[in-house]
Amino acid sequence: MEPVQSTGILISSANVEGTTVYNRTGDTLGSIHELIIDKTSGHVAYAIMSFGGFLGMGNQYHPLPWSVLKYDTNMGGYVVNLEKEQLEGAPAFDAGAEPDWRDRSYESKLRDFYGVVAS
Amino acid sequence: MEPVQSTGILISSANVEGTTVYNRTGDTLGSIHELIIDKTSGHVAYAIMSFGGFLGMGNQYHPLPWSVLKYDTNMGGYVVNLEKEQLEGAPAFDAGAEPDWRDRSYESKLRDFYGVVAS
Repeated sequence: MEPVQSTGILISSANVEGTTVYNRTGDTLGSIHELIIDKTSGHVAYAIMSFGGFLGMGNQYHPLPWSVLKYDTNMGGYVVNLEKEQLEGAPAFDAGAEPDWRDRSYESKLRDFYGVVAS
Repeated sequence: MEPVQSTGILISSANVEGTTVYNRTGDTLGSIHELIIDKTSGHVAYAIMSFGGFLGMGNQYHPLPWSVLKYDTNMGGYVVNLEKEQLEGAPAFDAGAEPDWRDRSYESKLRDFYGVVAS
């Protein structure tokens, strides 16, 4: 039989998208724009965080490994252990210039930056 | 170190949402409305398929275990081993009447109907 991968609290992608992302000192870093899913395993690999810009113009998008996002019920958003200054050096892309997700070297860059390992 | 759960082909949730769902004889069953994610594991547990209605009115929503959806590149959509008639007896909800995802018995009903097991 096919497995259904549900062991904990279930949330809708519609509720994740738009949720604010904070750093550990409570500064707003951005908000979740969309999720990047591993088609084969059905795992959420990355959450794309958007910030800056006005009415979607000039926005910058940062892919964050899903595992670095911790939901904080008091904040009502995700908390990431990342300073604003660090974010400036983080892998990012402009609106309309989405990375090629088939490019495994882009993923290596993300893993190296955030100190995560491939599972 | 935190793991990043990426082993295969990556797709954006924005691309999954709106994708047509077919049965094995090529009939359109509906389209993906949103994804239901296990917050703890980061796994996509269910895809909510919508069908019927007009301009979002009178739509019915069917939660499908992610594992029963197979992407078919020729069809350009997901294929599910389910007849239209079977869908009429499947767990579903109306717009604005989303199930309580904390209710584990609702999940049991879904697993029983689709013949999937909890992982």
